Amino acid sequence: MASTTLEQIASIVNGRIVGNGTVSIADARPVEIAGPGDITFIADDRVARALRACPASAALVGPHFRTRAQVIAPDLPLVEVEDPLDAFVKVRTHLRGGEPPRWVGIHPKAYIAATAKIGRNVAIHPFAYVGEYAEIGDGSTLFPGAVVQSHCVVGKDCVLHANVVLYDETSLGDRVEVHSGTVIGSDGFGYRLKEGRHVKIPQTGTVEIADDVEIGANCTIDRGTFEATTIGEGSKIDNLVMIGHNNQIGQHNMICGQVGLAGSCKTGDYVVLAGQVGVKDHTEIGDKVIIGAQAGVHRNVPSGQQLLGSPAMPIREQRRIFQMIARLPEMHQQVRELVAAMERIKILAAQAGVSLAPMESNTLEETS
Amino acid sequence: MASTTLEQIASIVNGRIVGNGTVSIADARPVEIAGPGDITFIADDRVARALRACPASAALVGPHFRTRAQVIAPDLPLVEVEDPLDAFVKVRTHLRGGEPPRWVGIHPKAYIAATAKIGRNVAIHPFAYVGEYAEIGDGSTLFPGAVVQSHCVVGKDCVLHANVVLYDETSLGDRVEVHSGTVIGSDGFGYRLKEGRHVKIPQTGTVEIADDVEIGANCTIDRGTFEATTIGEGSKIDNLVMIGHNNQIGQHNMICGQVGLAGSCKTGDYVVLAGQVGVKDHTEIGDKVIIGAQAGVHRNVPSGQQLLGSPAMPIREQRRIFQMIARLPEMHQQVRELVAAMERIKILAAQAGVSLAPMESNTLEETS
Amino acid sequence: MASTTLEQIASIVNGRIVGNGTVSIADARPVEIAGPGDITFIADDRVARALRACPASAALVGPHFRTRAQVIAPDLPLVEVEDPLDAFVKVRTHLRGGEPPRWVGIHPKAYIAATAKIGRNVAIHPFAYVGEYAEIGDGSTLFPGAVVQSHCVVGKDCVLHANVVLYDETSLGDRVEVHSGTVIGSDGFGYRLKEGRHVKIPQTGTVEIADDVEIGANCTIDRGTFEATTIGEGSKIDNLVMIGHNNQIGQHNMICGQVGLAGSCKTGDYVVLAGQVGVKDHTEIGDKVIIGAQAGVHRNVPSGQQLLGSPAMPIREQRRIFQMIARLPEMHQQVRELVAAMERIKILAAQAGVSLAPMESNTLEETS
Repeated sequence: MASTTLEQIASIVNGRIVGNGTVSIADARPVEIAGPGDITFIADDRVARALRACPASAALVGPHFRTRAQVIAPDLPLVEVEDPLDAFVKVRTHLRGGEPPRWVGIHPKAYIAATAKIGRNVAIHPFAYVGEYAEIGDGSTLFPGAVVQSHCVVGKDCVLHANVVLYDETSLGDRVEVHSGTVIGSDGFGYRLKEGRHVKIPQTGTVEIADDVEIGANCTIDRGTFEATTIGEGSKIDNLVMIGHNNQIGQHNMICGQVGLAGSCKTGDYVVLAGQVGVKDHTEIGDKVIIGAQAGVHRNVPSGQQLLGSPAMPIREQRRIFQMIARLPEMHQQVRELVAAMERIKILAAQAGVSLAPMESNTLEETS
Repeated sequence: MASTTLEQIASIVNGRIVGNGTVSIADARPVEIAGPGDITFIADDRVARALRACPASAALVGPHFRTRAQVIAPDLPLVEVEDPLDAFVKVRTHLRGGEPPRWVGIHPKAYIAATAKIGRNVAIHPFAYVGEYAEIGDGSTLFPGAVVQSHCVVGKDCVLHANVVLYDETSLGDRVEVHSGTVIGSDGFGYRLKEGRHVKIPQTGTVEIADDVEIGANCTIDRGTFEATTIGEGSKIDNLVMIGHNNQIGQHNMICGQVGLAGSCKTGDYVVLAGQVGVKDHTEIGDKVIIGAQAGVHRNVPSGQQLLGSPAMPIREQRRIFQMIARLPEMHQQVRELVAAMERIKILAAQAGVSLAPMESNTLEETS
Repeated sequence: MASTTLEQIASIVNGRIVGNGTVSIADARPVEIAGPGDITFIADDRVARALRACPASAALVGPHFRTRAQVIAPDLPLVEVEDPLDAFVKVRTHLRGGEPPRWVGIHPKAYIAATAKIGRNVAIHPFAYVGEYAEIGDGSTLFPGAVVQSHCVVGKDCVLHANVVLYDETSLGDRVEVHSGTVIGSDGFGYRLKEGRHVKIPQTGTVEIADDVEIGANCTIDRGTFEATTIGEGSKIDNLVMIGHNNQIGQHNMICGQVGLAGSCKTGDYVVLAGQVGVKDHTEIGDKVIIGAQAGVHRNVPSGQQLLGSPAMPIREQRRIFQMIARLPEMHQQVRELVAAMERIKILAAQAGVSLAPMESNTLEETS
C-alpha cells in the first residue's frame, strides 16, 4: 500500500478539501475500524455520529454532511464529494494498488467441446467445462469447475464463478454474474401420481436470464416445464434462493437470501422479497411490491403493496396484529374477568326474574 | 423442427381426430404461449377456458374434456387421447427431433480409481471422480465434476448431475437421479460440550437411497451417526432440502423446496412436506401426512393428518385460528368496549349497593 | 470385521466388566439396531429403557447407569466406563478395522498455481485447484473439486471437502473443516438504486475463519464489504446456512441448518441458533443467547436470553402466547356471548332509563 496526501486524494476523486490537506493517508477503511493514517467516509446521516470516536486521519463526506461532520469532529480534515461511497471505493483501490490484472485464455486443464463457440478475450480456468454447441461471449470468465452444458448461450462479459452449473440450453444475457455453487436449469419438481408412484413430467423448457442480472451463491433456478423460466433485466438475487420452474421474474427485482418461489409465479418490476420469504405456486406479484422477511405469500399481490407475516397481509394490518398478539395474555385476562362478572350479573338478574338470554327478548319485555 | 399434419400426430399418439385432420402442425407448446401452427393440450378442467383466447391450430384433449373444448372453441381441431399430457410430450419430442443421443464412455479427463468397478454403458464425463472401491452400475451417468468417493455403490441407470458429491460409503439404488450441487453423506451435526468446547461425535454411519428416488439441486443429506440415513423407494425431493443425520424417510414421499428435517426423524409412506417446512429432531410422521408450507413440526404426527402453521396444528384448526388472528383488532375493540360498559355497570351496581365481585356471592344473596 | 471377547473390549476402553467377560463380540451398533453378537452403549438415562428389548450381547455403560441397566436387563454383560459414547466409538473403530490410511500427495490431475505455497503432508486430490499466492498449511486435505482461489490462507490440518469454494483472500485457521459445496467469500448483497438500476457496491473485504471451526455442506459465507466477515474459534455451522457480509460470529456458536443471518450482524460466544432462524441485518446477539427454531430476530438480544417465534420474543412469553393463540376460537366465542349479553343489558337498561355509555356518567348520576 502506497501512502499519499489528502490533497492527492482530493484530486483523484475530484473533491474539495476542508481543513489540512497535507495530512498523510495510507489506507481507506470504514468508520468502525478506521485508525490513524486512514481515510474513512460518511455516506449516511445515521452513521455521522460514529466519527466522534473514530481515530481516522480524514473523511470523505457528501455536500450535506459537511456541516454535521464539522460539528461532530471539528478538527478532522474532510474531502467533500458528490458521492462519498464511490469516492471511497476509488481511493481504496488506488491505495491498495488496484485490482490484479485479469488472466485471459483457455487453460489446457479446461474442457471445451469441439462444437462450442468461444468468444474473444475469455478466461476459461482449469476444470471448467463447455459442452457441445455452447456459446461463450466475448470477455466472459468461467472460474474453476464451472460447467456450461450443451446448447447454452452465455453473453458478453459474464462471470460464472467456481462450480456454477448451467444445464443444457440455459441462456444468459450480457454482464450476468453467477456466484459459486449456483445451479441454473435443473429439472422442475413436477410429478403425477399414477398407480401409487410419482411419475415425472418431463421438464423440457429452458431458463432465460436477461442482461445485468446477478445471482448469489448456491441458488437453484429450475428450467420451465414446457416454456422458459425467466429472470428480467437488472434483477439481483442473493444466496440460497430457490426459483421454481416456469417462474417469470420481472426487471430490477431484489430477492434476498433463502427466499423460495414455488412453480409458475410471476413478479412485476422493482419487487423486493426479503430474507426467507416463501411464495406459493402460481402467485402473481405486482410492480414495486415489498414482502417482509419470513413472510408466506399465498395470494396474488397488487402493485405497490407491502406485505408481512405468514400468511402474509398488508404490513400495517400485520403490525397491528403483532401488537394484538403480544397483548393476548392481557386480553385473555380481561375476557376471563368479564365472563366472571357477567356470570354474576346473570345470577343477579335471574334472582330478579330477568333473563339476559338474547333470544327471549319478547318474553322479557312482557315480564319487565 | 419438422412440420406435420394433425392426422399424423393422431396416429403417433393413438388418438381420435375431431375436426379437420389436414391442418399443419409445426410445434407443440403449452396453452399460455401456443400460437398458430402449434398444437397445445388441455389436461385439466381449470385451464380449458384458456383455449378461448389461444390461437393454437389444434389441441390434445382427454375424453371428458372434448365436449367442454368444443363449447369453448368449436372450430378448433382436436385429438382425443387418454392422457393429453403424455401425448403432448410425445408429440413435442417428435416435432423437435427427439432427444440427442446420449454420449457413452469414460472421458480421459475423468478420474477413476484403480480399484473402482465400472459397469457397462456408463457415461463418465470430464472431471468426474470415482474413488477407491466405488461401484458404478450399468447405464449410469456421471456429469462433469460429479464426485463419487470411496466405497460408494451407485446402482443401474442412475444420473448424477454436474458437481454432485457422494461422500464415502453412500449407496444409491437403481434409477436414482441426483441434481447438481447436492451433497450426500456429509457429516451430521453432532457435538458434545466438553470443557467449553464443542467436541464432535464421529459420524461413522452411511446413507442408503432406494430405487427411483429423485433429489433436486443443492440439497444436503447427512450420513448417520452410527447407522444409516435412509430414503425410501420412489420418494422425490425438491431443491435446497436438508435431511439431517439418522433420518428414515419413507417411500413415495414428496419433500418440497427448502424443507429441513433435523436429526433422527422418521416419515411414513406418501408423506408430503410443502415448501420451507421445518421438522424438529426425533419427530415421527405417519403415512400420508401432509404438512403445509412454512409449518414447524415439533411433535409426532399420526397417519393421515394435515398440519399447518408454526407451531403446526391440524389444518382446520389452524385455518380457523388464522381467521381469528386476522380479526384480533376487531375483537380487541370489542373487549375494550365490554370492559368500559362493565366498569359502568359496576359503578351503577355499587351505587345501588350491589357488588359484582364473584367471590362475594353469599353476601350478595343476603343483601338482595 | 474381527470378532473379539468382552474382556478384550474392556481392556481396550479401560473399563470394568460386570457379568460374563467371555462373551464374543463381532460389531458395535447403537441400541435401536444392535443384535446378537453386538455390543451397544447407553449414554443417556432416557434411552436406558431401550435395553429391555435390545438383543445385543453386551453394553457399554457409565458409572451411574450400571444399577439402572442391571435392573432393566439383569443378565446383560456390561462394561462400565467413564464415557460410554467415547468408548463405543473406540470399540467400533477397532472392530471395523480402523480408519483407512489417508492418501498423501499432490495428484497430477490437480492444479496448483506456480506462486502457491503448499505445506508438508498435504493431500490435494484430482481436480482440486489452488490459485496464485494461496497457502495450504501442513497436513491439510483438499478433496476433489475443492477450489482455493488466489491469496487464500488455509491453516494446518484443515479439510476442504469436495467442491468447496474459497474466493480470493479467504483465510482459515487451523483444524477448520468445510463440507462439500460450501462457498466462502462470495460477494455480499449490496446495491444502491441509481437512476432505476441496482448498482453494486464493490465487495472488497475478506472472510476470516478462526481455529477449530466446522462448517456444513452447501453453506454460503459472504465476504465483507470493506472489512472482514469473521467466524470465531470453535463455532460449528450446520448445512445450508447463510451468513451475510460483515457478520461477526463469536466463539463456540452452534448455528443449525438453514439459518440465515443478514448483513452486519454480531453474535457473542456460545450462541445457539436453531434450525431455519432468520436474523435481520445489523442485529447484535449477546453471549449464550438461544434462539428457537424458525424464529425471526429483528432486534438486539441481551446476553443469556432465550427467544422464540417470528417476530421473536422471550420464550416464556412466546409459549404463553402460543397457548393463547390456540385458545383464540374459544375466546372469540366468549367475546361474542359477552357482546350479546351486554347488548341485552343495554336494552334493559335503556328501558329502565339508565344509560351505560361511560361518557355520560354525570348525567346518569343525576338520573339515578
